[in-house]
Amino acid sequence: MSTQTQNVTAYAAPAAGAPLERTSIPRRAVGEHDVLIEIKYAGICHSDIHQARDEWGGAAFPMVPGHEIAGIVTAVGAGVTRHQVGDRVGVGCFVDSCRECENCRAGLEQFCEKGMVGTYNSTGRDGEPTYGGYSTHIVVDENYTLSIPEGIALDEAAPLLCAGITLYSPLTHWNAGPGKKVAIVGLGGLGHMGVKIAHAKGADVTVLSQTLRKKADGERLGADHFYATSDPATFEQLAGSFDLIVNTVSANLDLDAYLSLLKTGGTLVNVGAPADPSSLNMFSLIGGRKTLAGSMIGGIAETQEMLDFCAVHGLGADIEVISADRINEAYERVLASDVRYRFVIDTATFASA
Amino acid sequence: MSTQTQNVTAYAAPAAGAPLERTSIPRRAVGEHDVLIEIKYAGICHSDIHQARDEWGGAAFPMVPGHEIAGIVTAVGAGVTRHQVGDRVGVGCFVDSCRECENCRAGLEQFCEKGMVGTYNSTGRDGEPTYGGYSTHIVVDENYTLSIPEGIALDEAAPLLCAGITLYSPLTHWNAGPGKKVAIVGLGGLGHMGVKIAHAKGADVTVLSQTLRKKADGERLGADHFYATSDPATFEQLAGSFDLIVNTVSANLDLDAYLSLLKTGGTLVNVGAPADPSSLNMFSLIGGRKTLAGSMIGGIAETQEMLDFCAVHGLGADIEVISADRINEAYERVLASDVRYRFVIDTATFASA
Repeated sequence: MSTQTQNVTAYAAPAAGAPLERTSIPRRAVGEHDVLIEIKYAGICHSDIHQARDEWGGAAFPMVPGHEIAGIVTAVGAGVTRHQVGDRVGVGCFVDSCRECENCRAGLEQFCEKGMVGTYNSTGRDGEPTYGGYSTHIVVDENYTLSIPEGIALDEAAPLLCAGITLYSPLTHWNAGPGKKVAIVGLGGLGHMGVKIAHAKGADVTVLSQTLRKKADGERLGADHFYATSDPATFEQLAGSFDLIVNTVSANLDLDAYLSLLKTGGTLVNVGAPADPSSLNMFSLIGGRKTLAGSMIGGIAETQEMLDFCAVHGLGADIEVISADRINEAYERVLASDVRYRFVIDTATFASA
Repeated sequence: MSTQTQNVTAYAAPAAGAPLERTSIPRRAVGEHDVLIEIKYAGICHSDIHQARDEWGGAAFPMVPGHEIAGIVTAVGAGVTRHQVGDRVGVGCFVDSCRECENCRAGLEQFCEKGMVGTYNSTGRDGEPTYGGYSTHIVVDENYTLSIPEGIALDEAAPLLCAGITLYSPLTHWNAGPGKKVAIVGLGGLGHMGVKIAHAKGADVTVLSQTLRKKADGERLGADHFYATSDPATFEQLAGSFDLIVNTVSANLDLDAYLSLLKTGGTLVNVGAPADPSSLNMFSLIGGRKTLAGSMIGGIAETQEMLDFCAVHGLGADIEVISADRINEAYERVLASDVRYRFVIDTATFASA
């Protein structure tokens, strides 16, 4: 591949809600600190669907979704020191940030005060639109490119770049580990990684799922306990049980009910957000010095730490690899919760699609 | 005074919402681990009014409010080791707890899993109703009786037992101190103690009050900055400013607006609770790993720590001492926010009232 500006094959939504179709998009020339990545796999995140359908507002088209990217470096700029040709690398939810604000300096680039540059549906520092991982190649600054350790297959690694770090960060920040009782609400793309990571960190892990349908799966993934939230007895039985609950469900939960499951001093962290405001009785927090928190992906250093942790513990996502011609079908199946637990697009199928 | 069961003078609400009137109530015999306290001063807390008017439900009458108690020990049980006759002591919001649960053992008696025994409007472990501080004497277990250090006048000490600890606990738990920017929302009985304590802890203190009416007071109490929340420019100007905000206002705030004032990783702690549920956009937490928390008074050891801290720093409440015949008038003035900053009843006026 050339290191000059070039057009590459991609799958894009031409307009809000329109089916994704094969197209060609420009990639910038490989700058001094850039790496050119041949994308091997791209995960499908629920947020890809929200954005491709402009459900969050501010969508720009054509849109090439994809922020769970795993591939191989095929060229590097003259000043690149972190990666070399042939390296296994990943790209997550953002590809740049101001690098100067308090948050960027603290390794919390996801909260960059000037706004991080999203991997897609965003505007790069060069003023050009960003296009995501549903494509054959991407050019990314070396500082926003992660190393994928040997020991994680590239296809299973792709979803770690969003789903993995989204759970790893709160589980780490709020000290999931030995002696801690941790609940994961929802066993989907995010939740299944939460179970794996919390288990690997040594916590006692409970899955709170709508039904017991995925119980065997949950236990296989590492859960010690599994309860159905559709059963009111669950909330009586587990009252005051958990040090930490991580909610991966974006629907509007009964926050007061979930807060009642926390021990004194416990924390309920939301990593998904419903579109509508949530209702909360403040007594649910006051009556036990409890906290309700939010968490959003993680910074670059923490994402690398997560990948290294996953390699040490042999963790990858549970995936269903699909060819490019099945992206639109996969979107429908994600919406129907019909995936265990992440679709990953094999970009080798782009040429033949 | 006798150490046997006896009747003492008190002010009680005979029924929900009825004016308080002078009456006589029984106090238990001084048990092996009890102290008999001659009450000198009793603070009036807003929650006294809520409960005397049965606005929280579950009120029992006659009710003798008062959980900000300062007095002198006049008798002790045979097994008492913590206090002796003549000691200056205080009693706060609770007079007993199970002493066995995880929270009690952790010094978090206010969150006793079996329920703490409230200083009034509660039922003691002997099955009898508890009556609070608007009375001449009270019998309390030594382990739930605090020592008031020399250096704090008893009248100024009384409000520390609720207002003081209510602010001291979250300011301590969430690390208010040098280099931290702390905001106190509301400058009333609770808020004015928050300003004093946060300032004494070395934090940079901002008062967020509805108007600038109390600005001079706030600065005298130790605030470095003072802003009016009725001015929308305040929220623009202070966006992303604070490590910690302690909200002392029980009305329903615009939580999303206040959360926008926090730095990344900041915490908004509520120590008051509106009767109605609050509304919250979860993105307000997720977009900066922010937390919304609750806090309720403090445990016995922490309350003692607070009193010792206040003595070292020369802190007491700003008070208006009233005679017993002005309790009902004081209630109206509390509701009209017409007190700077706490009414304290002088129980010496009970006999003559």
